[in-house]
Amino acid sequence: MERIRLADYDIFVGVVWEAFNNLLEASRYSKIVVLVDENTKEHCLPIFLAKTGIRAFELIEIPSGEIHKNIESCKFIWQQMIDLQVDRNAVMINLGGGVIGDMGGFCASTYKRGIDFIQIPTTLLSQVDSSIGGKLGIDFKGVKNSIGLFKNPKAVFIFPDFLKTLSTREIRSGFAEMIKHGLIADTKIWKELTGIEDFENTAWEDHIVPSLNIKKQVVEADPFEKNVRKKLNFGHTIGHAFESLALHTKHPLLHGEAIAAGMICETWLSMKNGNLSEEALNEVVTFVLKKYGKIEVASKSFSALLDLMKNDKKNEGSAINFTLLTQTGDAMVNHTCDEKLIVESLEYYTQL
Amino acid sequence: MERIRLADYDIFVGVVWEAFNNLLEASRYSKIVVLVDENTKEHCLPIFLAKTGIRAFELIEIPSGEIHKNIESCKFIWQQMIDLQVDRNAVMINLGGGVIGDMGGFCASTYKRGIDFIQIPTTLLSQVDSSIGGKLGIDFKGVKNSIGLFKNPKAVFIFPDFLKTLSTREIRSGFAEMIKHGLIADTKIWKELTGIEDFENTAWEDHIVPSLNIKKQVVEADPFEKNVRKKLNFGHTIGHAFESLALHTKHPLLHGEAIAAGMICETWLSMKNGNLSEEALNEVVTFVLKKYGKIEVASKSFSALLDLMKNDKKNEGSAINFTLLTQTGDAMVNHTCDEKLIVESLEYYTQL
Repeated sequence: MERIRLADYDIFVGVVWEAFNNLLEASRYSKIVVLVDENTKEHCLPIFLAKTGIRAFELIEIPSGEIHKNIESCKFIWQQMIDLQVDRNAVMINLGGGVIGDMGGFCASTYKRGIDFIQIPTTLLSQVDSSIGGKLGIDFKGVKNSIGLFKNPKAVFIFPDFLKTLSTREIRSGFAEMIKHGLIADTKIWKELTGIEDFENTAWEDHIVPSLNIKKQVVEADPFEKNVRKKLNFGHTIGHAFESLALHTKHPLLHGEAIAAGMICETWLSMKNGNLSEEALNEVVTFVLKKYGKIEVASKSFSALLDLMKNDKKNEGSAINFTLLTQTGDAMVNHTCDEKLIVESLEYYTQL
Repeated sequence: MERIRLADYDIFVGVVWEAFNNLLEASRYSKIVVLVDENTKEHCLPIFLAKTGIRAFELIEIPSGEIHKNIESCKFIWQQMIDLQVDRNAVMINLGGGVIGDMGGFCASTYKRGIDFIQIPTTLLSQVDSSIGGKLGIDFKGVKNSIGLFKNPKAVFIFPDFLKTLSTREIRSGFAEMIKHGLIADTKIWKELTGIEDFENTAWEDHIVPSLNIKKQVVEADPFEKNVRKKLNFGHTIGHAFESLALHTKHPLLHGEAIAAGMICETWLSMKNGNLSEEALNEVVTFVLKKYGKIEVASKSFSALLDLMKNDKKNEGSAINFTLLTQTGDAMVNHTCDEKLIVESLEYYTQL
């Protein structure tokens, strides 16, 4: 087991159950509430219960999927907590992917003005990304993560064996954030990741810890995203717009799929602004396309995508804010691009 | 003007507008959003605009009343903020009573993971109570303040002249929290308040600052209500239940009216538990009854009241938690009373 120490909580990676039980024993919570969706209830909860030996707990189940990361689900969760007479000394254990972690953490942090919560991320995406940084929240009126707050969990327990319960598509979604970590901060990690041929036979634990360490460094330098933390937004300005637009269609995108497409557009923007070499652009685009293929982006949706970007939390005023690569392994923040250039990056993507 | 300094923000009391304008100028916000209800829009907004000279701002208006301090109103406020393209560098100015301050602060703190907010409390209740302590939130499913969080405003500006816009009933509601501050912490202040004969001709500013200083001391000793801050809950275990029960009836109680009745019951409990003298009980009850009269409490509602008390945030596990007086001017926290005794305190009240 590896232990990553952050300012006010720890992330445990590996066979984490003894550490988990020690924490629970020391904390003497009045009640344990476990939040799951139908997938983690079926595939992860039995493992969690067998490994920890927990018997006395309350279960709250929500339907899986980003489309349910909304205020109506929060109302359902809060109502359940009231009905279960959950008090302030209870703990909420969020067993699932990013939706469970972000929304469960938000509900716990706002229930009776805040109870403790523990994150047990079960997807690659949540293991390498949302487990660090204290970002909690929900989507609102089609805008991703527009309601939420910053609050750290009591601890995070990452058990890579949970990844065996995932589809290749879900693994690939999480992999996009790992690519991003390499691209913005560490060319060596980027190169290592490009060497991964087969998602199913990868020793993920070896890659999760280095990826978390990049995010840790960035987040601890700037917890409230005033400056360098914005590096982590690479691929996300356009990627979030892709994701939001697809959210209510018949073919919603997984987060990483949208971010992969967003990274291609924003790598092109990085080249256009004179910092990134054409060679590096081709290297990134070739690898990302090989792994993710292309998503469908109709030119008639460009203006809707721009509108979504304008509502991005990352903006100041009306200008659309980007994080751009300067090379594979470094990035600069707070770069605004005008709408014409953004549309050209979308055209570049569609013509690939 | 008086200035009360807290750990991370200041409260200004008196003619506060120059201080307000200085803060605003120094902060260079991207946008000013003012939250009002129909009452403060009519009576306080014109004064606020004339005194500050602000011209460029966005107005969000919600209907007045505790019944609207709910998640539906939050959804309306968040939606307005999205439509107005409010960014993270904007500020929200909450111009109104406790509902505006608690809910506006909650919405600001959760919008795009938190923007700055400034409290301008316009009622006596919000000036002496909710302006200190960082408690934000809304009622949910009939449970008072069950969803919320702790977060401090950028600053609080108290302009006692706003009190001239209030009815005597509203002044009296705020007065209950001032009585409470005296009773739990300072017998001299309690005695001074019992000398107030006429609500309309009182120089409130003289009483607001000492009352705030009591609350400041208690809150700074224990910001997250782990221990001594619970002193401030005197009268509120039973009082909140009265308030919640009346909320959806034809005759909702003002907060202070419910707390006044709750203080009578809990003063009786304080005597029954052997700490408070019968003389002190009579002194408190006589004064509170003289000012507030009696609210209607039917014995058939006792079990509903107990259920509400069980769902109180202040409890640990299933026991109902009280703050009880040891004398007029001091209190002890974390006292549990059994249900039989609580019912007797309700009977005592109804038989007065």
